[in-house]
Amino acid sequence: MAYDSEGTRRRLLDAAIHEFSEFGIMGARVEKIAALAKANKQAIYMYFGSKEGLFTAAFEERIRDFHSAVKFDESDLPAYAGRLFDKFEQSPDTRRMTLWYHLERSVAKVPVPLIEESTRAEVTAIRKAQSEGRIPAKYDAETLLGLIRSIALTWHTQVPQLHNAGPVSRTKKRGVVENAVRDLLA
Amino acid sequence: MAYDSEGTRRRLLDAAIHEFSEFGIMGARVEKIAALAKANKQAIYMYFGSKEGLFTAAFEERIRDFHSAVKFDESDLPAYAGRLFDKFEQSPDTRRMTLWYHLERSVAKVPVPLIEESTRAEVTAIRKAQSEGRIPAKYDAETLLGLIRSIALTWHTQVPQLHNAGPVSRTKKRGVVENAVRDLLA
Repeated sequence: MAYDSEGTRRRLLDAAIHEFSEFGIMGARVEKIAALAKANKQAIYMYFGSKEGLFTAAFEERIRDFHSAVKFDESDLPAYAGRLFDKFEQSPDTRRMTLWYHLERSVAKVPVPLIEESTRAEVTAIRKAQSEGRIPAKYDAETLLGLIRSIALTWHTQVPQLHNAGPVSRTKKRGVVENAVRDLLA
Repeated sequence: MAYDSEGTRRRLLDAAIHEFSEFGIMGARVEKIAALAKANKQAIYMYFGSKEGLFTAAFEERIRDFHSAVKFDESDLPAYAGRLFDKFEQSPDTRRMTLWYHLERSVAKVPVPLIEESTRAEVTAIRKAQSEGRIPAKYDAETLLGLIRSIALTWHTQVPQLHNAGPVSRTKKRGVVENAVRDLLA
């Protein structure tokens, strides 16, 4: 049987997403990732260079998955916020990897070109819509995008205790996210 | 010289805040905390029981500091949001420890009574103000508090790349936070 190079790489990425999302960059163990992927540790260094390189590749895979699932549409930002919320709900691994990135790489400020590019495109689209009067301009484009993302993350970045006053359905949370973005645009 | 028990405890807490805020619970090393506090490792176990117990004590110290700095006032929620923002800006250690807590203790759901109590009090105050017509009731009290906190954290929970389109002054960010909360209450 020929050595399935692409298959190994894919299994390593999947295992890495699992391990990094649970334990972060410092806490993840390459031995566990290799075992989970039924590969050897050397394969990780061969394909990704280092544990850091593997995190970058795994994080980028999650961002690509995020972008393909969440269509940006500046002409209906409340609906976009709802899709953001849905995706954060469905992908705790992506959400957790983003927080690990934030905590473990914020000092070094390791750039993530994929995020920079998509952010730039979204900001440009919002700015154009603002200059054409299709979206209110009371918040500048970067700020508006930041607020929308933060609102969509309301139930995901705070300590659990903040939201255990009672069960709130996912449908209701999604509606709140859409309404709050509508308020910003009113 | 008598052994300064309270001084040792305080120095251990300060060192723990420093180490945990940088490396999280798993990544922190008790040896480094003891060295930074000019104490021995045994003192940590004596005062706090374990590394986990030390994290809890350090986190609670940060929450007390947070509560004493950020006065809650349901009659002016935009101003409260501005104070939240200020405190998050001034205390990256508190912010980071909250995220570490979120990532490393969210599965175990270790309760933080201090946060539960203050949240309950704030939710009750908002609910009362809503029932008296002083605050719009379109969002329920828990949700409104969650949205306010999330908006105050807009620049603190996202990957840095989202906000490097241009320098935004702290004063301007604070104004955005206040305005966004005003929008929710409009």
